[in-house]
Amino acid sequence: MTKSFADNKTPLSVVKIGGNIVDNPDALESFLDDFHQLEGDKVLVHGGGVMASKMAEQLGIETKMIHGRRVTDEDTLRLVTMVYAGWINKSIVASLQKRGCNAIGLSGADGNTIPSVRRSPEPIDFGYVGDPDPSKTNATFIARLVDGGAAPVFCAITHDERGSLLNTNADTIANTVATACSKLYQTTLFYCFEKEGVLRDVDNPDSLIPTITQGEYEKYKQSGIIAGGMLPKLDNAFLAIKGGVSEVVVLHARNLLNGKGTVLR
Amino acid sequence: MTKSFADNKTPLSVVKIGGNIVDNPDALESFLDDFHQLEGDKVLVHGGGVMASKMAEQLGIETKMIHGRRVTDEDTLRLVTMVYAGWINKSIVASLQKRGCNAIGLSGADGNTIPSVRRSPEPIDFGYVGDPDPSKTNATFIARLVDGGAAPVFCAITHDERGSLLNTNADTIANTVATACSKLYQTTLFYCFEKEGVLRDVDNPDSLIPTITQGEYEKYKQSGIIAGGMLPKLDNAFLAIKGGVSEVVVLHARNLLNGKGTVLR
Repeated sequence: MTKSFADNKTPLSVVKIGGNIVDNPDALESFLDDFHQLEGDKVLVHGGGVMASKMAEQLGIETKMIHGRRVTDEDTLRLVTMVYAGWINKSIVASLQKRGCNAIGLSGADGNTIPSVRRSPEPIDFGYVGDPDPSKTNATFIARLVDGGAAPVFCAITHDERGSLLNTNADTIANTVATACSKLYQTTLFYCFEKEGVLRDVDNPDSLIPTITQGEYEKYKQSGIIAGGMLPKLDNAFLAIKGGVSEVVVLHARNLLNGKGTVLR
Repeated sequence: MTKSFADNKTPLSVVKIGGNIVDNPDALESFLDDFHQLEGDKVLVHGGGVMASKMAEQLGIETKMIHGRRVTDEDTLRLVTMVYAGWINKSIVASLQKRGCNAIGLSGADGNTIPSVRRSPEPIDFGYVGDPDPSKTNATFIARLVDGGAAPVFCAITHDERGSLLNTNADTIANTVATACSKLYQTTLFYCFEKEGVLRDVDNPDSLIPTITQGEYEKYKQSGIIAGGMLPKLDNAFLAIKGGVSEVVVLHARNLLNGKGTVLR
């Protein structure tokens, strides 16, 4: 925070929501109320939800999995682009506009905001899946929208600058956008998910760890208190902090306005 | 043109393409080459094509028609939003980005660019279909993107400012955007379609009428030389000219760069 005050940068909130909110109309409406009320400049990043899987089934598109991970073939790419960049993204935008929040929906192809690199087909070819190239993320374009009073709303689709769209992890997009924007703003990244934050005991919501530093994180990992699916999330979060993001807050979506969760610094 | 020179406005091209190009990969690639090469500031508006109808069939969504016109129920709205704002819009954006054209894909909900009014359910309820409110079209937001070096790419989806997306005619969107932007730019509207322009004899491509003024148009209508499906297109075109658009050119997509077609003034 000291650094940011010294830099005199404007605060920016980058908020990420996942399928657990996108799939639940009541939770989504309630979240969008809060997002609209969140003060200052802001960016929303949303995941996909189960709608793509449901539609794949209806359309007879086979879901190919390798080592538990989905392969994005041509039909699947078309489907996720339709669902993520089409229906989900535009529904969220219309819903925010209704509230008076000037949302603008984007994929990483729009304004060349998030150029990505298609993942190598070796050792496993996951198809049209890409990872953002952080050095190319176009923070200037995003800032132009934000400074004009708009709230960019990103779906989890990017492109390879060679004409191909790419299916991309939404957490990674949030991370990439927050890190790139931290050059221009005092950026806080909010990871909303279905728990209260990082818990000492995953089954006990009262065991919230309020703050974690990088040093503490290493100890929690060694002792096994933080494990499993939380590790890639927090590894990414600390990468964002190293990259210039002021704070990462891991929290339940319902706590966006009070900020109650785990603060990583 | 005199007025525009006097106003010292920057030129802007608003180009509309329909399903005949969107559905044909070779024609689309060739058109996007030309659009990229078109000099100066520009906006693209694209129609939908037959992909939505094909998908509706695959998904078992019944196509309801009243008096030959499609009814947009909730399922159909979701479908056209997925196809128009999702797959088609983002594919065009990625394809333009590949060429170095900084495209940004938009629905009328994004940036509240095109607020629309849902069509009255009386006498016929066409469902989630909307007509843009020209007094509310947000030319300032569009100009902010254009002046930042971006080329907005509009799909034929708008919103009602009350949370609902609306299926909207692509010709009307092109018209609305061109008219609104004519307050800020010296605007030319290009309607690309499958013929050379307005023809004296629809079966003879050599019978192109090179220019038509409002007065001449009335005479052509009275004599029956211009009739049928061309009438609503040209009625709209002359409305755009009344609204401030400098010129409307009706032409085959392949002639975008040489401008050969019918010029309405």
